[in-house]
Amino acid sequence: MDMKILKNLKKGSLVHCITNYVTVNDVANVILASGGSPIMADGIEEVSEIIEICNSLVINIGTLNPRVIKSMLEAGKTANKINKPVVLDPVAIGASNFRTETCLNLLKEVRYSVIRGNASEIKAILDGNKTSGGVDVSVEDIINESNLEEYIKVAKKVSEIYKSVVVITGPIDIVTDSKKTYIVRNGHENMEKITGTGCMLAGLIGAFVGANPTNILVSTTMAVGMMGLSGELANKKMIKEDVGTSSLRMFLIDYISKLDEEGLKEGLKIETYK
Amino acid sequence: MDMKILKNLKKGSLVHCITNYVTVNDVANVILASGGSPIMADGIEEVSEIIEICNSLVINIGTLNPRVIKSMLEAGKTANKINKPVVLDPVAIGASNFRTETCLNLLKEVRYSVIRGNASEIKAILDGNKTSGGVDVSVEDIINESNLEEYIKVAKKVSEIYKSVVVITGPIDIVTDSKKTYIVRNGHENMEKITGTGCMLAGLIGAFVGANPTNILVSTTMAVGMMGLSGELANKKMIKEDVGTSSLRMFLIDYISKLDEEGLKEGLKIETYK
Amino acid sequence: MDMKILKNLKKGSLVHCITNYVTVNDVANVILASGGSPIMADGIEEVSEIIEICNSLVINIGTLNPRVIKSMLEAGKTANKINKPVVLDPVAIGASNFRTETCLNLLKEVRYSVIRGNASEIKAILDGNKTSGGVDVSVEDIINESNLEEYIKVAKKVSEIYKSVVVITGPIDIVTDSKKTYIVRNGHENMEKITGTGCMLAGLIGAFVGANPTNILVSTTMAVGMMGLSGELANKKMIKEDVGTSSLRMFLIDYISKLDEEGLKEGLKIETYK
Repeated sequence: MDMKILKNLKKGSLVHCITNYVTVNDVANVILASGGSPIMADGIEEVSEIIEICNSLVINIGTLNPRVIKSMLEAGKTANKINKPVVLDPVAIGASNFRTETCLNLLKEVRYSVIRGNASEIKAILDGNKTSGGVDVSVEDIINESNLEEYIKVAKKVSEIYKSVVVITGPIDIVTDSKKTYIVRNGHENMEKITGTGCMLAGLIGAFVGANPTNILVSTTMAVGMMGLSGELANKKMIKEDVGTSSLRMFLIDYISKLDEEGLKEGLKIETYK
Repeated sequence: MDMKILKNLKKGSLVHCITNYVTVNDVANVILASGGSPIMADGIEEVSEIIEICNSLVINIGTLNPRVIKSMLEAGKTANKINKPVVLDPVAIGASNFRTETCLNLLKEVRYSVIRGNASEIKAILDGNKTSGGVDVSVEDIINESNLEEYIKVAKKVSEIYKSVVVITGPIDIVTDSKKTYIVRNGHENMEKITGTGCMLAGLIGAFVGANPTNILVSTTMAVGMMGLSGELANKKMIKEDVGTSSLRMFLIDYISKLDEEGLKEGLKIETYK
Repeated sequence: MDMKILKNLKKGSLVHCITNYVTVNDVANVILASGGSPIMADGIEEVSEIIEICNSLVINIGTLNPRVIKSMLEAGKTANKINKPVVLDPVAIGASNFRTETCLNLLKEVRYSVIRGNASEIKAILDGNKTSGGVDVSVEDIINESNLEEYIKVAKKVSEIYKSVVVITGPIDIVTDSKKTYIVRNGHENMEKITGTGCMLAGLIGAFVGANPTNILVSTTMAVGMMGLSGELANKKMIKEDVGTSSLRMFLIDYISKLDEEGLKEGLKIETYK
C-alpha cells in the first residue's frame, strides 16, 4: 500500500455525508479520527452548494424518506457534474421494495466511485430484487475461503456494470475495480456486535477517496484495511480488559485516530488477488 | 426467572424500531449487545414490509412529527395483523397536548404487548390529560416503599384497559399483566444522569419479547431486570474507577453484552407481588 | 466567577433544544452531566408548549430543513414572548446561501440571550454573506494573541447589533456583552478531533443561562470555561492513557459531570478584558 495515501488524508478531506440518523454521530467521529472533516447537510436547498466545497460525497440509505432521497439525487448529480467522488452504502437493500427501488434508482441516476456493502447487499444490487432479511448479511452469504471466488465474481460483475470500485465486507473483504482485486483479511466478527461499522467504513472511504481522487482503488482498499485493523485491535483490547461491546465501539474509533504509517504497515493483511 | 428466555434471545431477534433521533444509536447498540438485531426504518413507504421480516416492533414517541406518526400507526396496525408483539414507550406524554393526543391515538389504534413508562407517563395515560413537566418523572411520582401499592394499582388499571403488560420504571420497577405482578429492585438512580435509559429498555424489551412472543410478562420482567442490573453494575464501576456519566453509559451497554445466565441469576432482584 | 451560578444549575434546568441529528445525543448527555435536563422536541405542533415548561431554548442550525426551521422560528418567538433565554448556535453559517439566509432570518425574527460560534461563523453573521468553508473554522480565522483584539471587536459589534452576549470559541475564547468582555484560556485543540464540542457547549450554555436568567454574561462565561476545562482535563487523560479521540469524547463528558466548585476554581483560566 502506498503510504502517500494516508499522508494526503492527514492534510484534510471534507466529506459531505447524506446518511442515516442511527449511526451519523459515529460516522462523523470516524471521519474526524481519520484526519478528515464531516459535514452532514441533507436539505435539498443546500446540498449542491455543500458538495461544491467538499472533497467527496457519501450516500447511505440506512433510513430513507422521500425528502432525503431527493437530496441524495440532487447532491449525487452535482457531485458527478463537478467530478467529486461519490460513495454509496446500499444499507439493507432488499429489506423492502421501497429500499430496493430507491437504491436501484440512485444507481441509475448517479455514478459512484465506490459502492460498499455486505455480500447480501451487493448480491441484491446484481439481482435487482428482494433477497435480504434485514440490515445484517444473510447466513448463507457469509464469505469464507470456499465461496470467496464466487463473491469476487459478484463484486467484479457489479463493478463492471456500474463502473465503480466495489467493496464486499465480511469475514474476508473484497475490493475490486473489475480489473484488479484486493483481498483484505483484517477485522473481527465481533464488529457486528456494534451498530454502524459498515456506515463508518463508508464514511472512512469517503475521507480516503476525497483526499486521493486519482487513486480510488488503492485508497478504498486502505480504508477497508484500516477499519478492519482497528476493529481487530479493538477486539483484542476488549477481551484483554474483559469489557463489552460499547467499549469495543470506543476502542475502534480510538484506533482509527491512532493508526499511523507504521501501525498500518505492521497490521494490514492485504493481498492482491491472482 | 426461566433462563430459556435468555437462550431464545441469544438465538436472535430482529427488532423494528420507530424511535427518536436523540437516543436511537444507544437503542440499536443495546439491542445488538443483548443478542438481537435492530432495524430503524421509519418511512411509511416501507414500514409494513419491514415489520413483516422482524420479530417485534418498538414505537417510541420521543421526537414526534406528522410524517413519523403516520409510519407508527401503519407499522403498528400491520404488526397487530400479523401478530408481532408491539412495545410502546410513551416518552414525555403529558409534556404537550400534541404529545398526549398522539399517544392516546396510538393507544386507540394499535394494540400493545407492552407499555413502558415512568410513573408520570403511565399516570398520564390513565388520566388522558396533561400532567408531566418534561421527559423526567415528576418528583411526586417517584416510586418508594410507601407509595408502591398505589402505583401497582395504576399499572394494573392501565394493563386492564389496554390489555398490555405494563412496566413502570423508577427506583422500584413494576411489571404487571393485571393478574400477576413482578417487582424489580435492580437499578440505580444515577441511570437518570444519562439520556435514553428508558428508550434503551424499551428496545431491550422489544428484543426479549420478539424472541419470546408466547411469554410476554416474564420476558419483559427479565429485560427490566437486566437493564437495572446492568445499570447497577455500571454505577459501581463508575464509582470505583472515579469516572463520570459518559463512562456510566458505556459500562451499562458493556454489561448488557456481558451478562449471562449466571450473572443474571446472581444479580436479579425480582419478587412476585403477593 | 460567582459559584452561586453552578449551585443554581445543580438545582435543575430544563433545556429545550432544537438541534441537529449528528450531535443531539452528546448535547443531551452534556446537559444531564451538568445538572440540567434536556428535551429535544422539534415538531411545530408542540414547540410552543414545550418551551413554556422549560427554562431555556437552544437553536442549533447544524442540519436544516424547512420543517425544522418553522419550528425554530415558532419556538424562538414564543420564548421571547415569555422571556425565556434563547441560545443560537449558527453552525456552518456561510457554508451555503440557504444556511446563511436561514440564520440571518432567525437573527431577525428572534432575540437571543447568547450567540455562540467559531470565529468564521461570528464573522459571517457580521458580514451577512458567504465566507465559510464548512463546519470548521477557516485557518485564517483561528484566534491567537496577535489577532485577539480584532476578534474582540467583531464579537462586540455582533453583540451590539443583536443585543446578545456573543461567544467566539477557539484556542482563546471570547465572551462579551459589548460592555464587559471575558477571555477564557481553557480548552485544547484536540477537542476539534471530535464532532459536536461546539454543539455541546451551546447546550451547556442553555443549561447555565436557564438556571441563571438574570446573569447571562457570567453564567455563559462559566459554561465556556467548564467546557474548555473539561476538554483540557480529558485531553491530558487521553494522552496519559495513550488512547484516542473516542475516549477523549467520553472523558470530556465525564469531566463535565464531575467538575464541582473546587475543580472549577482550581482550573478555570478566565480574565476580564481590560
